[in-house]
Amino acid sequence: MSPSDSGLFISIEGGEGAGKSTVIAALSDLLSADGREVVLTREPGGTPEGEAIRAVLLDPGNHVVPEAELLLMFAARAQLVRRLIRPALARGAAVVADRFTDASYAYQGGGRGLEMGRIAELERWAAGIRPDLTFLLDVGVAQGLARARSRGGEPDRIEREREDFFERVRAVYLARAAAEPARFRVIDASQPADAVQSAVRAALTEWLRSR
Amino acid sequence: MSPSDSGLFISIEGGEGAGKSTVIAALSDLLSADGREVVLTREPGGTPEGEAIRAVLLDPGNHVVPEAELLLMFAARAQLVRRLIRPALARGAAVVADRFTDASYAYQGGGRGLEMGRIAELERWAAGIRPDLTFLLDVGVAQGLARARSRGGEPDRIEREREDFFERVRAVYLARAAAEPARFRVIDASQPADAVQSAVRAALTEWLRSR
Ligand SMILES: Nc1ncnc2c1ncn2[C@@H]1O[C@H](COP(=O)(O)OP(=O)(O)OP(=O)(O)O)[C@@H](O)[C@H]1O
Ligand SMILES: Nc1ncnc2c1ncn2[C@@H]1O[C@H](COP(=O)(O)OP(=O)(O)OP(=O)(O)O)[C@@H](O)[C@H]1O
Ligand SMILES: [Mg+2]
Ligand SMILES: [Mg+2]
Repeated sequence: MSPSDSGLFISIEGGEGAGKSTVIAALSDLLSADGREVVLTREPGGTPEGEAIRAVLLDPGNHVVPEAELLLMFAARAQLVRRLIRPALARGAAVVADRFTDASYAYQGGGRGLEMGRIAELERWAAGIRPDLTFLLDVGVAQGLARARSRGGEPDRIEREREDFFERVRAVYLARAAAEPARFRVIDASQPADAVQSAVRAALTEWLRSR
Repeated sequence: MSPSDSGLFISIEGGEGAGKSTVIAALSDLLSADGREVVLTREPGGTPEGEAIRAVLLDPGNHVVPEAELLLMFAARAQLVRRLIRPALARGAAVVADRFTDASYAYQGGGRGLEMGRIAELERWAAGIRPDLTFLLDVGVAQGLARARSRGGEPDRIEREREDFFERVRAVYLARAAAEPARFRVIDASQPADAVQSAVRAALTEWLRSR
């Protein structure tokens, strides 16, 4: 799985309410200041077809079996990679992704208990690329859920899972970060938003310098 | 892949306008007369989640990449098997499916050129069952398309493909039938509807008797 050639592919991962969307604005500013075209994506979704798939996945009225959940995630990701991410990287843009394949290992592998080898095969075949750099915003499950709930609104189908589901999600994220230290930067996201953003900016600046 | 234990699982396959929907009504009557509960399904679709996936797949405004097309088909099929087909077979019903996994080999394998081994893996993992009996309604591509068009209405995203796409679909269907003669009954669907229905009824009656 080759990283991007001329562009930069950066993903932001973490559990519910870790602060991913909040951090992405800061990252985007920093990369633009660096003179880069910045392309933001989110998962599931990011293309018209992917957003329709997102609606199926998150509708609390749907009963999505785990196998279908995994296949839908990768269907949206196959669209996203081919229609948006690869073309953007090819023209030298920085792609900042609000979740990518690590989220499938964490949610469908850790959370739902699907076999990791199956996810790895789909990663190779349907995604085919991995981020150059991944920020894992790590925060305790209860603290993250409290933040996500403070935003208000109805929880979606996945946000309605029990805490032990999210504990398994967190454990897989941390295990993946430990296994791939060159790609991951783990950020303590229990800190106030300002401190999280400073940590992310510092890590990105250092990474850009060292490339 | 175990066939159904107490129920009957019958699929109807064929290209556009082969007459699948027309034949299913006749099959359903015959099975009901046999004292069976009959459950009809269609693909893609057949569950609320699957019908939403169908809408993504068939919308002519969508640009679905081949990999996403295959994953969406199997996502809908994973739902269909687990939420509808397996429960129906377990209570002894006859399930009559308007297309099943053979259609993925024909359309995504033959038509789109995706690797057959990939489809076989998804079949094992996401579908997990095969029909007990499959009717392949075989008709020339031009004749089938003319019939489908005579129904009127706007062609969907897949119906808009060129004739060589449907020639590849037909070739894969015929090859699969030749490779699994115990499961397949190939029906000459170029005949008038009455003759097609008689042939299907005769083959079903003989198959039910010989079980
Ligand atoms: N470090 C932080 N400290 C306190 N509150 C925060 C912090 N970061 C974000 N928040 C707030 O917590 C809520 C969730 O943050 P955000 O939406 O960025 O999380 P997220 O990881 O994108 O969540 P989701 O997984 O639902 O997309 C928001 O109301 C946000 O303002
Ligand atoms: N044997 C036949 N001879 C002539 N016309 C037929 C025959 N079978 C069906 N038709 C007509 O052809 C049209 C297509 O048939 P039908 O909808 O059953 O095909 P289908 O295989 O279900 O198509 P699709 O793949 O679009 O679902 C209908 O108008 C139907 O009445
Ligand atoms: Mg967010
Ligand atoms: Mg039909």
